[in-house]
Amino acid sequence: MDEQLVTERSFRAQADGREVPGTLWLPTSVSGPVPLVLIGHGGSQHKGSAGPRELAGVLVRDHGFAAAAIDGPVHGERRSDGGLDPAAVFADHRADIEHPGSLATMATDWHAALDLLLGMSDWTVGPVGYWGLSMGTLYGLPFLAREDRVRAAVLGLWGSAGTAPDTWAVLASAASAVRCPLLFLAQLEDQLFAPAGVLELFTELACCDKRMHVNVGLHGEVPADEHAGAVTFLVDRLRQTQPAA
Amino acid sequence: MDEQLVTERSFRAQADGREVPGTLWLPTSVSGPVPLVLIGHGGSQHKGSAGPRELAGVLVRDHGFAAAAIDGPVHGERRSDGGLDPAAVFADHRADIEHPGSLATMATDWHAALDLLLGMSDWTVGPVGYWGLSMGTLYGLPFLAREDRVRAAVLGLWGSAGTAPDTWAVLASAASAVRCPLLFLAQLEDQLFAPAGVLELFTELACCDKRMHVNVGLHGEVPADEHAGAVTFLVDRLRQTQPAA
Repeated sequence: MDEQLVTERSFRAQADGREVPGTLWLPTSVSGPVPLVLIGHGGSQHKGSAGPRELAGVLVRDHGFAAAAIDGPVHGERRSDGGLDPAAVFADHRADIEHPGSLATMATDWHAALDLLLGMSDWTVGPVGYWGLSMGTLYGLPFLAREDRVRAAVLGLWGSAGTAPDTWAVLASAASAVRCPLLFLAQLEDQLFAPAGVLELFTELACCDKRMHVNVGLHGEVPADEHAGAVTFLVDRLRQTQPAA
Repeated sequence: MDEQLVTERSFRAQADGREVPGTLWLPTSVSGPVPLVLIGHGGSQHKGSAGPRELAGVLVRDHGFAAAAIDGPVHGERRSDGGLDPAAVFADHRADIEHPGSLATMATDWHAALDLLLGMSDWTVGPVGYWGLSMGTLYGLPFLAREDRVRAAVLGLWGSAGTAPDTWAVLASAASAVRCPLLFLAQLEDQLFAPAGVLELFTELACCDKRMHVNVGLHGEVPADEHAGAVTFLVDRLRQTQPAA
C-alpha cells in the first residue's frame, strides 16, 4: 500500500471485556467528513490479509474513503498463533460457526469497533458502509440487523445450504431485519454454498433496495469487473447519503 | 418514435411456407455496417408493442444501431384479429406453449428473418445481438442454440417452474447449446416464474460468459436502471465483436 497516500493505524476496541483487534486505513490528508467502509474478511483470513488490504487501498487511494477491518472470531490476533496458518484457522472457524452464539458476539464486536471509530478525535467519519463476502456476510448480517448507522452494504457468497441449522435460523432472522440498500453476490459453481441456498438467503433480506448478481466460477472467483462494480455501488451509495454521526 | 432519426420498415420473411411478419427500425442515415439487435417480444404483446418499439428507439437514436422484431406465434399479424386484445392473445399463447414444437417453429422463423435482414441490399448488417425477456427467452434460446451469427444476448424472466414438462425439456436442451455471451435477468417476486426456477434455467446455459441479475419486483417490474444497464451490456458486447456476414 502506498504509504504516501494511505495511513494505517491499529486500534483495539473493548466489547463485553473482550479486546477486539482492528486496523484503520485513512487518507494521509483528510479534510471534512470521510466516508468509512467496514470490511468483514473471509473465513481463514484476517484483518491484514490481501483481500481486505487491497480493498482498503482502492477505497482510500481512488475514492478518498477510510476503511477498517477487525479480526473475526478465532482469526488473526484473536489467536495466540497470530492466525497465519489458513488451514488451522479454517478448521477452527468451521467448528466455531456451528455455535450460533458466535454471530451475536461478533456483532457486538463490530458495534464496539464502530463506536470507537466514530469517537476518534482527529478525523470525522462520514457515511458508513459495510463490505463482507462469505464469512463477512455471516457476521455482517447480525451486525447490520441492529445497526442503522450503516447506510449501504456489499454482501454475498453465503447461503442456507452449507450452514448448520441453528446458525441458519439466526442468520435468516437477522437478514429479515436488515434495511440498508445492498448488493448481494453469488458464484454459480460455489463449492461451499450452492447458488439455490444463496438465493434463499437473498430472499430473506427484508430491505427493498437490493439486487443479486450471479457470476460463473467457484467460491473465490468473483470476476474482477464484478468486484470493481461492487466498489462503485458502495461508493456511489455512500456519496448519496448523509453521515451517521 | 422520432421519424427524423428512425426509419421504420415492414418486412415479410418466408419460413417453411409460413409468412413471418416483421418490423425493421434503421437509422435514417447509415454508412458502413450497422449492428443489429433482434427483439423477441413478450407474451400477449406483438412486434409493434410499446416494449419493442421503445427499445428499438433507444438502440437506433442513442447508439446508431438497427433493431428488428417479428410477431410471436399466435401474436400480432399472425392472427386474423391483429393481436390487439392482450387477454385473448395470452390465453392462446399459454395453450400454444404446451406444445414444445412451437419452439422449433419459431426458431425457424427467426433464422428466416435474419437471413432476409442480412440479404437486404441497401444497408449492411454489422454484429448481431438478441434481446428477449419472458416469451422472448422461451423462443430465443432454441433460436440461439442453432445460430452462431448472434454474438451477444439479453435474456431472462423465464424458468423451469411455470413451464410444461415437455416444453421445459426442449428449452433446457436448447440452453445447453447456447454459446454467446449473455446477461440473464430475474425478478425476485416474479408471479409467473419463481426465481429458483429461473436460476435453474440460467444454470442450464452452457456459455461460460454469462451473468444473472436478480432484482426486487414482479414479472413486469424490471427496474429502469437494470434495463438501461442491459442495453449498455448488449451495445458494448456488439461493439467489441465482428460482423456476422
